Amino acid sequence: MARRVRIDLAYDGTAYEGWQVQPGRPTVQGVVEACLARLHGGTPVRVRGAGRTDSGVHARGQVADALVDEALADAELTHALRALLPEDIRALRVATVPETFHARHDARSKTYAYYIDRSFPGDPFLARFVHHERRSLDLDAIDAALALIPGKRDFTGFASSKCTVQDRVRTLSVARRERVRSDVDVLVFTADGFLTHMVRNLVGTVLDVGAGRFTPERVAEVLATCDRRLAGPTAPARGLTLERVSY
Amino acid sequence: MARRVRIDLAYDGTAYEGWQVQPGRPTVQGVVEACLARLHGGTPVRVRGAGRTDSGVHARGQVADALVDEALADAELTHALRALLPEDIRALRVATVPETFHARHDARSKTYAYYIDRSFPGDPFLARFVHHERRSLDLDAIDAALALIPGKRDFTGFASSKCTVQDRVRTLSVARRERVRSDVDVLVFTADGFLTHMVRNLVGTVLDVGAGRFTPERVAEVLATCDRRLAGPTAPARGLTLERVSY
Repeated sequence: MARRVRIDLAYDGTAYEGWQVQPGRPTVQGVVEACLARLHGGTPVRVRGAGRTDSGVHARGQVADALVDEALADAELTHALRALLPEDIRALRVATVPETFHARHDARSKTYAYYIDRSFPGDPFLARFVHHERRSLDLDAIDAALALIPGKRDFTGFASSKCTVQDRVRTLSVARRERVRSDVDVLVFTADGFLTHMVRNLVGTVLDVGAGRFTPERVAEVLATCDRRLAGPTAPARGLTLERVSY
Repeated sequence: MARRVRIDLAYDGTAYEGWQVQPGRPTVQGVVEACLARLHGGTPVRVRGAGRTDSGVHARGQVADALVDEALADAELTHALRALLPEDIRALRVATVPETFHARHDARSKTYAYYIDRSFPGDPFLARFVHHERRSLDLDAIDAALALIPGKRDFTGFASSKCTVQDRVRTLSVARRERVRSDVDVLVFTADGFLTHMVRNLVGTVLDVGAGRFTPERVAEVLATCDRRLAGPTAPARGLTLERVSY
């Protein structure tokens, strides 16, 4: 007999080519599935993640689900995963959920955080988890640009050309900057869903606003025209963390 | 003509076999010297560091000095080092100092910090910079042990057998625990000098006190007898950071 568990994960994504399994490549999903297979005598166990984080993107609150052997209690599973997972992937919690639980489909919203280190010359203790921005930034302009983002909108202009979904309308409830310390800021985005590269394209555009390349209104133009060419570059993966998934 | 500069450095020591140059091995001093040599047309430049951090030990405030070409202004040097150094080694500041300045000999005191992650299952964002302690710790016992350490004492009992200096008397002014967050603590040590592995042996002993293997008084016994065998194990390098050097 099998039962479904929810597995909350935190990871340093630096060494991984993203969440999703790719044959022959190190991915977070691949590592978690390999550990669960070991706990099931080699039988493959499929893990479904709430967010398909890109290569090099981190998570403090990724949520996954899997069907596991009834004989393995939640606490046993937690301890076994703790022992088997590499130290850059941690299982925070394992809990039995209804059989019908689906980590991705059931998610009501996700929150991503993008960390920006504006210090000179950059903090080596943060380097894996932040984007080191070398340009001087107008933070008021960034805040003005962020204020234009929330709402139910077609985010095609901020999606990667690799994005294959048809419906690009998402409801974004939070887009705001928070101060982490005097020279480190975090841009926080909460939405009911995100398109491929959406957060990194939003960040790249907003940073170009901060650097004076665009006025804040550029964000509204990209949203209105759905023209990716008007947006800024895709910000580097390393600054991005999947903070939280809400159900 | 040459002038002496003081170079303040921060580094993630994970990838390095410590500060001190060793032929054919990656060391922080070796990398900094190679960068300075590049800026001097290949002429070797010797760098003297205040603290010879061990393999895997980090620094937020290492101080080094070097004789550099008069033609290179401090700001130029800072920018050139910023461009040439790998991102896990950052030159925080370059400043001209008197010719007689010696980063190690002139140091009045150094402060080391040892970070302990007591969370379950360990925070992957901190993993490179903390020791993940899996035992449950009696923090009051740790504080009682730390209180026995300050003073002018012979620290032979906490020195590595590899320690070659004759005079093992040091004056330790600070040995205290600070709370970083609910499940992360830092043990802070300030002294006029430290013996090889001294901080890590102090920490290993104090953690064994916290885990109930020793009473706090064990620390006083080790100090009184200078018997290394009575002390705890050498705590892992990764938790240790050279925080500050005072002149």
